[in-house]
Amino acid sequence: MSNNDAYKELQERMRDIHNLRAAAAVLEWDMEVNMPPKGAAARGRQLATLSALAHAQFIAPSVGTLIERAREHQDTLTDDARVLLRETAYDYQRAARIPEAFMRRFATARAAAYHAWIDARRQSKFSLFLPHLETLVSLSQEKAERLGYEGSPYNALLEDYERGMTVAQLDTIFGALAPRQRALAARIMNAPQQPELSWLEQTWSEEKQLALTERVLRDMGYAFDAGRQDKSAHPFTTNFSIGDVRITTRVDQRAFFSALFSSIHEGGHALYEQGFREEDEGTLLAEAPSLGMHESQSRLWENIIGRSLPFWRHYMSAARELFPGMLDSIAPEQAYAAANRVTPSLIRVEADECTYNLHIILRFELETALIEGALDAADIPAAWNEKMASWLGVEVPNDADGCLQDIHWSHGAFGYFPTYALGNLYGAQLFDAMSADIPDVMERVGRGEFADVLRWLRDNVHSVGRRKTALEIIEDVTGRQPSAAPFLTYLETKYAALYDLA
Amino acid sequence: MSNNDAYKELQERMRDIHNLRAAAAVLEWDMEVNMPPKGAAARGRQLATLSALAHAQFIAPSVGTLIERAREHQDTLTDDARVLLRETAYDYQRAARIPEAFMRRFATARAAAYHAWIDARRQSKFSLFLPHLETLVSLSQEKAERLGYEGSPYNALLEDYERGMTVAQLDTIFGALAPRQRALAARIMNAPQQPELSWLEQTWSEEKQLALTERVLRDMGYAFDAGRQDKSAHPFTTNFSIGDVRITTRVDQRAFFSALFSSIHEGGHALYEQGFREEDEGTLLAEAPSLGMHESQSRLWENIIGRSLPFWRHYMSAARELFPGMLDSIAPEQAYAAANRVTPSLIRVEADECTYNLHIILRFELETALIEGALDAADIPAAWNEKMASWLGVEVPNDADGCLQDIHWSHGAFGYFPTYALGNLYGAQLFDAMSADIPDVMERVGRGEFADVLRWLRDNVHSVGRRKTALEIIEDVTGRQPSAAPFLTYLETKYAALYDLA
Repeated sequence: MSNNDAYKELQERMRDIHNLRAAAAVLEWDMEVNMPPKGAAARGRQLATLSALAHAQFIAPSVGTLIERAREHQDTLTDDARVLLRETAYDYQRAARIPEAFMRRFATARAAAYHAWIDARRQSKFSLFLPHLETLVSLSQEKAERLGYEGSPYNALLEDYERGMTVAQLDTIFGALAPRQRALAARIMNAPQQPELSWLEQTWSEEKQLALTERVLRDMGYAFDAGRQDKSAHPFTTNFSIGDVRITTRVDQRAFFSALFSSIHEGGHALYEQGFREEDEGTLLAEAPSLGMHESQSRLWENIIGRSLPFWRHYMSAARELFPGMLDSIAPEQAYAAANRVTPSLIRVEADECTYNLHIILRFELETALIEGALDAADIPAAWNEKMASWLGVEVPNDADGCLQDIHWSHGAFGYFPTYALGNLYGAQLFDAMSADIPDVMERVGRGEFADVLRWLRDNVHSVGRRKTALEIIEDVTGRQPSAAPFLTYLETKYAALYDLA
Repeated sequence: MSNNDAYKELQERMRDIHNLRAAAAVLEWDMEVNMPPKGAAARGRQLATLSALAHAQFIAPSVGTLIERAREHQDTLTDDARVLLRETAYDYQRAARIPEAFMRRFATARAAAYHAWIDARRQSKFSLFLPHLETLVSLSQEKAERLGYEGSPYNALLEDYERGMTVAQLDTIFGALAPRQRALAARIMNAPQQPELSWLEQTWSEEKQLALTERVLRDMGYAFDAGRQDKSAHPFTTNFSIGDVRITTRVDQRAFFSALFSSIHEGGHALYEQGFREEDEGTLLAEAPSLGMHESQSRLWENIIGRSLPFWRHYMSAARELFPGMLDSIAPEQAYAAANRVTPSLIRVEADECTYNLHIILRFELETALIEGALDAADIPAAWNEKMASWLGVEVPNDADGCLQDIHWSHGAFGYFPTYALGNLYGAQLFDAMSADIPDVMERVGRGEFADVLRWLRDNVHSVGRRKTALEIIEDVTGRQPSAAPFLTYLETKYAALYDLA
């Protein structure tokens, strides 16, 4: 068998695995969007079969052999094929370190933990979740040992979500971020000028809200012939191919901004996935290199663009047309101020731009301590509540609205949280670079013209796929390493003006 | 390994295969109902992977070994387990006779034929489809040889759709059916009394039509918490588990009856699939024994119940409420007459109860002749048009509305058509038996009370699953073999009254 044959056979195997994963994604989308309640049990079994099959096919020793053979003669391959082979080998080596029996143990523990978490949250009783959290921490520590790491065992887990990132680097970045965000939030809380919000207390028709989201999504460049928007309890983006990238949104008739910002956020994710190269279809190259990089796209669109004054100057008239009589006396400046109101809150997913990262850093500190063995799971509620009080000045009244609010730990997903904050930082850093290339970018936003914004993101981020890591993309595009500085400058400038801070 | 272990392992393997097939069904449903156009190419590849995997897993020699071992000690199994083992062996033996290379050849030919058929139909040019039809006939003949048969090679193909049925038996049944249906249709055409249809020419709101279908589906007993109804170009029923049985319907604002009868028809299929036994979930026993038996359920509900006078006496008021002012002057008798208007037509799927089976018998005669080598594919248009003229008095103006109208042959699905007519016959035969057990069944229909109808079907048909063949069910439940007589009696009685025939 010549070297090219090995590569070709490897690609065929990988395509089957990709198709199994894509099928699972369709089943998951359907589960959130369409499935009747009585379909749940069988759907769980169907998903389990697909994921077990995909994993088994991937970690088969013959795949390792094919990778080795293909690598022996990789000089015969194109650049892209070499990169794809490198990425395949990277995934294979990590997956192969996790034996099937361990996978199953983890999956079983996770399923039990998830059900316990649902229960614990409903009853607001951390003790119901505690034994499961302990098990998942201990399994995650074992997983870290199996995967191998330098420095903190947390690094091994973080790698799954933000390849190449480390606790040490996050400590530096978050260390620069936290005090200035806390200080800014405190100044805003004490500002005499607070946004007027009473106009929001109207009933905003679901249908009209959806029409507004569709208008904005189209303007952003989201291709509805290669996707669709539906409703679901928790908004998300998924794709089954570059030609089928779907988003969901959540509509609340009492919340004017909720569907719009959900849709812009998911639209940012979706533009990324619609922007991979056609020739990468069905391969690992048609993937984002990290969750942080993925999140940078949603945050850039949602916050830097969607929560900007030029955006509201442009879309206010569309909103007024859709909601006749309801917004006539509301100036774009008022909508802008309301969309950016700052209130330290209990719940991460409801947090504003000024305080959001603090929720993340709190979780990051607690979960690194858990994984490094410096904190007992039993001490989580006290540690959580103490940080919420000292960082955000918020008293946590119960576990449900405290340490039980997020699903992530019940999924054993330690290392996931930091990517949300990194998304904010990457987004600001990329936007700075974009602004250097397109100096009048905010004027374009003010005209609802996003073509060049999208083109810039396509060229510099989307079309790269997994050819580079997130860290490499940030360095190549912005000329420096990931940093808190651009985000802090953006935040402080924006809010100083908004709240008239000296 | 003890005998029970072999059976258990076999069941585990079969569950995986079932889950792969269920996943494929989700992807197909999504393709018809939701998928954006640009998702089509990748979706085709995803489905190909799932079906190739399911087939490869099923025909693995180790499955044959497990079946043999489990059978050696089948006396240790429960009755149901023994039946399930028998059915698994039946499917395995048939599947194992088709080598993977042949499957792939057939799939490739089918894909090409399907595209050619789309083109040929659009251009109404049979010659474009002819070479593909020839290939599919020849491949189907090869398939019949591989599968083995007694009598006609068509029997081998028919077995896939209507197990145990033969050309000889169909010749007898259809031979009794065709002349009397032709005679009845002719008398109706000459009847002086024809239904008044001008009231149908109004615009029937899509939303209200859907509301009416939902009302009727609920009354029939369709469980919306174990299914859902969506719109699609061609109505169909699919299931991913007993708890997730979905139907689609087609709504045309100019056609009052279209969505309603589509929904009742698919609802009849869906009630079957919601009616399998919970303990059969995920096994071959939670399947209908044949397409004809499946179709008997849709036809019984759609025609015998939905196109009955008591049905319209009951639902007329609901329809009037939904369409205020549009039906005030229309008596239930008029709706009933309109729902049963007879007009010999070109298109099978638009045919009425009196002529529908004739369309089927035409196709059956042509496709048996093709498979038996008695007719050249090139002679299909002439043979088709001649039969349409002599049987139905209809001149076929072009191939698109003639021999190119149906998708089936382009899928290489020879042997499928007869099941539609058998569905009509089985339905009438079963309804006779039901009427003996529930003498006031039509009075119940007239009150919109379907609970006992459904219970009877659940007990006698649905819950049986694949424990018996369709032929066995018909014999056990009705006391005689499949026959044209009950259907002819039903048809002649109904239409004699409707058209005031002497």
